[in-house]
Amino acid sequence: MVFYVAISRLIVPTGRRVFTCIHLATPAGIPHIHYLIHQMAVFERLTHLFFATEVTLSTTLFPAANPIPSFASFTVFVLEVSPNPFLLAPENPHFTPINKIVTLDLKTDDPGAETFQYQALTGTTVAGYTLFSPNYSSFLAKPGFYIKDIFIREAYQRKGFGWMLLLAVAAKMGYGRVEWVIIKWNINGGR
Amino acid sequence: MVFYVAISRLIVPTGRRVFTCIHLATPAGIPHIHYLIHQMAVFERLTHLFFATEVTLSTTLFPAANPIPSFASFTVFVLEVSPNPFLLAPENPHFTPINKIVTLDLKTDDPGAETFQYQALTGTTVAGYTLFSPNYSSFLAKPGFYIKDIFIREAYQRKGFGWMLLLAVAAKMGYGRVEWVIIKWNINGGR
Repeated sequence: MVFYVAISRLIVPTGRRVFTCIHLATPAGIPHIHYLIHQMAVFERLTHLFFATEVTLSTTLFPAANPIPSFASFTVFVLEVSPNPFLLAPENPHFTPINKIVTLDLKTDDPGAETFQYQALTGTTVAGYTLFSPNYSSFLAKPGFYIKDIFIREAYQRKGFGWMLLLAVAAKMGYGRVEWVIIKWNINGGR
Repeated sequence: MVFYVAISRLIVPTGRRVFTCIHLATPAGIPHIHYLIHQMAVFERLTHLFFATEVTLSTTLFPAANPIPSFASFTVFVLEVSPNPFLLAPENPHFTPINKIVTLDLKTDDPGAETFQYQALTGTTVAGYTLFSPNYSSFLAKPGFYIKDIFIREAYQRKGFGWMLLLAVAAKMGYGRVEWVIIKWNINGGR
């Protein structure tokens, strides 16, 4: 009987397949990034310190005259999720999007699904982002990176998506030095 | 009598003039930077974590094939001091060296003077360095910087040189966001 249960768990996993895609942020993603940063400010109870607008984000992350070099300077990754495979992965010469399929109990009830819809054609939804900068360990004489922000929208928290973003950054930037600080009360931040 | 003392302090300052110069690090400065980082490790009692060599510093700070863009990525400023004016200021298209004259009680007895001599012609000495990276405040939508290291050699500590380096970085990178951490026992770190 116990054996049967174990097998049944093996063949019929609870949850369903979710397609994920991590890609470099683009100017087209600014409205979503703005929403995400605001939701992070709400989550951190720091909305009184939130002054970003879509315009200021756009002109500082994607200045037209003097573009910020991706990875050499501060850089944003966006995480999208979808019930369907990603057909229209955003293309960028500096970074090939990371596509993964995960199986999990995802509540289909995402109150922000419409706001965070990314690609109209495939019905994908923005689930989170990370902002990171290059760093350098002088003791090791080794470049590394500093994770400034990692934020996953509430409907997608505690599913390993934060780690997925962290590992995507580490894989690209090297594992020489990983620095981050988790706000003390953010008990889910390391999960 | 009190008035006389005050005047005498005004006209005859104690100490002597010291010429200072903050400039972008160059490959020629690697041996000094290596010494400085090692002295910082000694000062922080962390020599067991010190693994930098002149070669690894050189290949990571100044990679020949794919140069690190100054200021867009991690960047090193070097502080030199001299009893004489700087005649041969290092030139760099991205940064004009900052020259200042300060009056202070400088012990002429610097045990590292010979090791840290920078320009043979003017007899200047390397006093310290700072290593910083670009950073970004998503709440403010504003680029800023992260001071990773500031180190001033022992003979030059407690004279405001650390602040001079910090202000040089802030003036160049903008005052949007200044982040640093002072090791708890480093009671002179903020002076």
